[in-house]
Amino acid sequence: MTPEEAVEETLCPIARALSVACDRGTLLIMRELSMGSHRFDDLQAQTGLSPTLLSARLKRLEETGIIERRIYSSKPQRYEYHATDKGMDLDAVLVMLRAWGMKWTPYEEGQGPAVDLKDRETGQNVNHDTPITAGFRLGDCDAAISPEFANERALRRVKFQQGRRTKPS
Amino acid sequence: MTPEEAVEETLCPIARALSVACDRGTLLIMRELSMGSHRFDDLQAQTGLSPTLLSARLKRLEETGIIERRIYSSKPQRYEYHATDKGMDLDAVLVMLRAWGMKWTPYEEGQGPAVDLKDRETGQNVNHDTPITAGFRLGDCDAAISPEFANERALRRVKFQQGRRTKPS
Repeated sequence: MTPEEAVEETLCPIARALSVACDRGTLLIMRELSMGSHRFDDLQAQTGLSPTLLSARLKRLEETGIIERRIYSSKPQRYEYHATDKGMDLDAVLVMLRAWGMKWTPYEEGQGPAVDLKDRETGQNVNHDTPITAGFRLGDCDAAISPEFANERALRRVKFQQGRRTKPS
Repeated sequence: MTPEEAVEETLCPIARALSVACDRGTLLIMRELSMGSHRFDDLQAQTGLSPTLLSARLKRLEETGIIERRIYSSKPQRYEYHATDKGMDLDAVLVMLRAWGMKWTPYEEGQGPAVDLKDRETGQNVNHDTPITAGFRLGDCDAAISPEFANERALRRVKFQQGRRTKPS
């Protein structure tokens, strides 16, 4: 499938974007790539997608030019996944979803935001009400993960490893 | 289901937002509401969702406080669907998806953007590179639909009506 074929036949750019880039799994993958997870196992652990679904999503994202594979081991052959410019341009969508989530999904008392973002150039925090332009890059921000969220991510890794060990062979 | 129950158990505001508000169908419904389609049939015609799926999505959006129903006919009982403040706050996500779609989904030659948006207060066009804050409202913009997109939407209505007439009774 070419990038052109993947796009829904409509003139509406929202629907066109949604047809290639918007489902929960895809955007969670893009979040992980911008948080520095690039390998299949890490992506699986952190997104919670099944291997089959994750493979399908990665294949589609590669076909549509949103991510690219880079070899990091030749025997056995293993790949890392990285966002292209087209993929990194989804950061602006992610950060708007983040703003919405910060405002509208109620946190329990004492729970803070998962990640503090600070624009490296201006030193300003990226908050719920920071103006964002389409070229916004999470990679241009310093990200401070809260201890609670770091813990949540570590637990997911442990659970994932345990699930793998207890699988019938 | 309460709005709290609908939110995925994670501290990440992106994942939390995705768990309640992000699938293609949901965001197409939100696009339609902000374009002035408020009735079930219009939403069905323009989103292309099946009646069952559309009902399920609307129910969930109402339960999570993103839309509200308003009665417009009592005999037979009929409702219109409108975005709440929580729902209208997704406009910033939609407009970022629009920017991405304008840049990254290739249009054929001669095809323009579907809708020209102009900020009513400043008179400025909302383009691919306009800074957007979380409180952005499509309702604060004048929207000029291109003749081609108006045509596409009219065709969808016709197809929908035809589909209904030719259904076995």
